[in-house]
Amino acid sequence: MLLAELREQVCAANKELVTHGLVTFTWGNVSGFDEASGLIAIKPSGVEYDQLTPEKMVIVDLEGNVVEGDLRPSSDTPTHAVLYKRYPQIKGIVHTHSSFATAWAQAGRGIPALGTTHADYFYGEIPCARALTDEEINGAYELETGHVIIETIADGDPMEVPGILVREHAPFAWGKDPHNAVHNAVVVEEVAKMALHTMMLNPQVSSVNQTLLDKHYLRKHGKNAYYGQK
Amino acid sequence: MLLAELREQVCAANKELVTHGLVTFTWGNVSGFDEASGLIAIKPSGVEYDQLTPEKMVIVDLEGNVVEGDLRPSSDTPTHAVLYKRYPQIKGIVHTHSSFATAWAQAGRGIPALGTTHADYFYGEIPCARALTDEEINGAYELETGHVIIETIADGDPMEVPGILVREHAPFAWGKDPHNAVHNAVVVEEVAKMALHTMMLNPQVSSVNQTLLDKHYLRKHGKNAYYGQK
Amino acid sequence: MLLAELREQVCAANKELVTHGLVTFTWGNVSGFDEASGLIAIKPSGVEYDQLTPEKMVIVDLEGNVVEGDLRPSSDTPTHAVLYKRYPQIKGIVHTHSSFATAWAQAGRGIPALGTTHADYFYGEIPCARALTDEEINGAYELETGHVIIETIADGDPMEVPGILVREHAPFAWGKDPHNAVHNAVVVEEVAKMALHTMMLNPQVSSVNQTLLDKHYLRKHGKNAYYGQK
Amino acid sequence: MLLAELREQVCAANKELVTHGLVTFTWGNVSGFDEASGLIAIKPSGVEYDQLTPEKMVIVDLEGNVVEGDLRPSSDTPTHAVLYKRYPQIKGIVHTHSSFATAWAQAGRGIPALGTTHADYFYGEIPCARALTDEEINGAYELETGHVIIETIADGDPMEVPGILVREHAPFAWGKDPHNAVHNAVVVEEVAKMALHTMMLNPQVSSVNQTLLDKHYLRKHGKNAYYGQK
Repeated sequence: MLLAELREQVCAANKELVTHGLVTFTWGNVSGFDEASGLIAIKPSGVEYDQLTPEKMVIVDLEGNVVEGDLRPSSDTPTHAVLYKRYPQIKGIVHTHSSFATAWAQAGRGIPALGTTHADYFYGEIPCARALTDEEINGAYELETGHVIIETIADGDPMEVPGILVREHAPFAWGKDPHNAVHNAVVVEEVAKMALHTMMLNPQVSSVNQTLLDKHYLRKHGKNAYYGQK
Repeated sequence: MLLAELREQVCAANKELVTHGLVTFTWGNVSGFDEASGLIAIKPSGVEYDQLTPEKMVIVDLEGNVVEGDLRPSSDTPTHAVLYKRYPQIKGIVHTHSSFATAWAQAGRGIPALGTTHADYFYGEIPCARALTDEEINGAYELETGHVIIETIADGDPMEVPGILVREHAPFAWGKDPHNAVHNAVVVEEVAKMALHTMMLNPQVSSVNQTLLDKHYLRKHGKNAYYGQK
Repeated sequence: MLLAELREQVCAANKELVTHGLVTFTWGNVSGFDEASGLIAIKPSGVEYDQLTPEKMVIVDLEGNVVEGDLRPSSDTPTHAVLYKRYPQIKGIVHTHSSFATAWAQAGRGIPALGTTHADYFYGEIPCARALTDEEINGAYELETGHVIIETIADGDPMEVPGILVREHAPFAWGKDPHNAVHNAVVVEEVAKMALHTMMLNPQVSSVNQTLLDKHYLRKHGKNAYYGQK
Repeated sequence: MLLAELREQVCAANKELVTHGLVTFTWGNVSGFDEASGLIAIKPSGVEYDQLTPEKMVIVDLEGNVVEGDLRPSSDTPTHAVLYKRYPQIKGIVHTHSSFATAWAQAGRGIPALGTTHADYFYGEIPCARALTDEEINGAYELETGHVIIETIADGDPMEVPGILVREHAPFAWGKDPHNAVHNAVVVEEVAKMALHTMMLNPQVSSVNQTLLDKHYLRKHGKNAYYGQK
C-alpha cells in the first residue's frame, strides 16, 4: 500500500466518526498502519473533521516520531503506536468518547456479551482496563495507556475482541483497516447502549453461553462463516 | 401478484428500515411472500441498504432454497421461510436489532401491554421466546429460531400479536405485506422504549385490563374498526 | 375568524407535530376552535401529515357532528369537542403519544413541577387522570376520555396547566390557538424527559416551592409578565 | 474590539445553540463582553434564533441598563451582567435548559468529574448552587441568581470550572468569548448525560483522583498544554 492510499483511508475514516455520531467536537481520532513501510497515518491534534484532508494526516513511526507532516499528531499517538507495535494484526485504531461506551468506562465495568448483536463482533466481554497508577499518569501517560490496554489483552488475539474500555476515560476499538476499526467503534457504542438498558430491565442478567457466542461469532468470522456474500 | 412486484415491495421495505432508524449497518432484513407462486423475496445477506435494487432481492422457496438470484439470501432466511410455511396469514417479515426491543430480548422479558399505544397494534404482551438449547444452536440454528417462535405463538393468531422477541437476540415482526411488517417493527421499538421508561417510573406497573385492550385493538382491527378512512 | 383561516392554522399545526418529533406514523392530531361559528376544525383520521391540506381538515360542531368534509374526523374528535364545550378559553387542542409523556401516563403518575422549565408553562403538576371504568371504556369511550379530563381539571383554569396525562394512554395539551397547543405539547414532552432523569438522580426530589412557581409562571404569564417583547 | 464585531459574535453564538441541539424554542441565550467599552451584547428576549441578526443584539452596561437597541434584552440579563462585573476573565456567557444538565440541576446535584471527558474541560465538579430564598426570588430574582452563582464560585477562578447548575433551574456556562462559552455549554450537557448513565451502572462510583484530573485538565489548559496545534 502506498502512503497516499493510507492517508486517504485514514482521512475518510476520521470523517466517518461524524457520520456515525460518535464524536462531539474533536473528541476522537483514527489511525491506520502500513505494514510495508512500518508507518502510521493519524489525525492531527485538535483539527475539526470537516477541515481534514489526506495531506493533513500526520505520518509517524512505531515509536510515535513524526516522519511527515507539519501538524502535530493526535495527543493519543503513543497509545496507537504501541498497539500497532505489539499486535501486527491490527491495521486501524479508533479512539472516541462516544456517550454510552464512555459511561461504562467511567463506571469501571466491562460490557458483558448479553446477546447476539455483541456476539456477532466480540468474542466475549469488552473488557475495562485497570486504572492507571499515579506514576503512570505522571509519566508517559499516553504510552502507559497503551500499556494497560496490552496488559488487559495480554497474549489474547486482539481481533477476537476488537475493542476495550480505558477506565475513567473512554473506548478504543481496532480492526483490519481504519474503516473496519470505525465499524467496530460503532458496535461498541451500540452494544453499550443496549447493555445499559438490558441491565435496567434485568439487573441479574448473565452473559450468553459459550454455544451461542461461538455460533454468532463464528457465523461471521470463523473459517466457515456464512454471513454476507462470498 | 407478480414476483417483480414482490421484489419491489421487499426492496422498498428494506430501505424503510433505514428511514425509521431501526438498523445500524446491515443489521436487519425484510422479506415478502407471494401466495400464488409460494415464493419468498428476501434481502441478500450483508448488502448495504442503499445498494439494494429489486433485482438484487433473492427468491427462495418455503424450504429456503434459492430459486432466483446470484446473491446469497439473508442468513436468517430459514427463520422467515418456516414462519411463512406455518402461518399463511403472514405475508411480510422483518428482523432487526433495534435498540430498545433488543434490550428487552437480552433481558429475557416480554413487553407487557402498558398502554393504548401498544394495544392499538398488539393484542397482549409481545412475548419473549425461550432460549434455544445447545443442540438447537449447534443444529440448524436459523431454522430452530423459527421453531421457537412457532412454539411461542403455537395455535394463536400471529396477526393479533405481530411481533416477538427472540431471547438473547432481537425482535422479529410481521404483517399482511412487507410494508406493514416494517410498520409493526417500528411499533415494537416505540413501545419497547416507552415500556422501559414506564418501568423506571413505576416498577410495579401492571398491564392494561382486557376491556381497554379490546377497545383499542378492536377500534383499529376489529370488524367494527372506526380508525382511519373507510 | 374565517373557517378558511382556521383550516390553515389546524393543518399547519398538525404538520408541526412532525417538525417537533412528537409523532410516529399518524399517532397525533390537532384541532382548533372558532368562537364565532362555534365550529371545530380537526385532522382527518389516519391520514399522514405530509398528505394534509387545509381542505382536508374536517369541520365538526361542539357535539362532534361533521358539518363539512368528505373524510372521517380523528377518532378522538369527541374528546376534543367536549373540552371546547366545557372550557371556552381553549382554542386549540393536541393529542400525541410522545414517548416520555406517554411513559408517565402509562406509569399512572403526574409530572411534578421540578424546575423552572416546567414552571414557565405549567402552574403546578401536570396531572394524570384516573383510569376509565369498564363502563366508560365500553360506552362512548372518546367522550368519556374527555369527561375524565374535565373531572381532573374541574373548576380550575385549564390555561394555568395546559396539559394532562390520560392514564394508560397518552398526553393531551391545549392553548389559545392550535399553534400554541402544539407548543405546550412540546413542553409536556420535554419536561417529562427531564423529570424522568431527575427522578433517577434523586428519587426523593420534591416539587419547587410556591414562590419559585409563582415567579416563573407569572414572569411569563401574569399581568406583569416581562419575558419576551412587548 | 468594535461593538459591531461583538454583535456578530454574540449573534453567531446564539445560533450555535440550535446547531448543537441545546435549545427548545427560545430557552437559551448567549451574551458577550467587550472589555474596552465595558459593554455587553446579549440576545433579545423571546426572539427565535433564526430571526436573530447582529443588529438585533441588545447592548447593555454592567448594571444591565440598555445602552443600544429597540428590543428588550433577555430577562436573564442581570445574571449575565453581574457575572461579568465580578469576574473580568469571563468574556462570554451562555444559559440554556439543555435536557440532561437541567435534570442534574433539578435533582440538586453537582456533576462529579467521573472521567477524562469532564477533566479535559472542568477542573473538578460542576457545582450545583444553593436554592434561592423566598426573599431572593421575590426580590431582584435574576440578579440574585447571579449572586448565588458568585457565592458558589467565591474566590475561585471561574475559568477552571466554566459552568454551574442553578438549582431547580438549569445550567449556565461561560468562556473566553461567546463561542467558547457555547463550547463549554455543550460539554456540560455531554458530561451530564454520561454521568447519569455512569451512576446507573455504578451508583457508588467516585470522582477521578487529583492526578488524573491534573493530567487531563493541564494537558489542554496548563502552560505546558500539548493538545491541539501550536
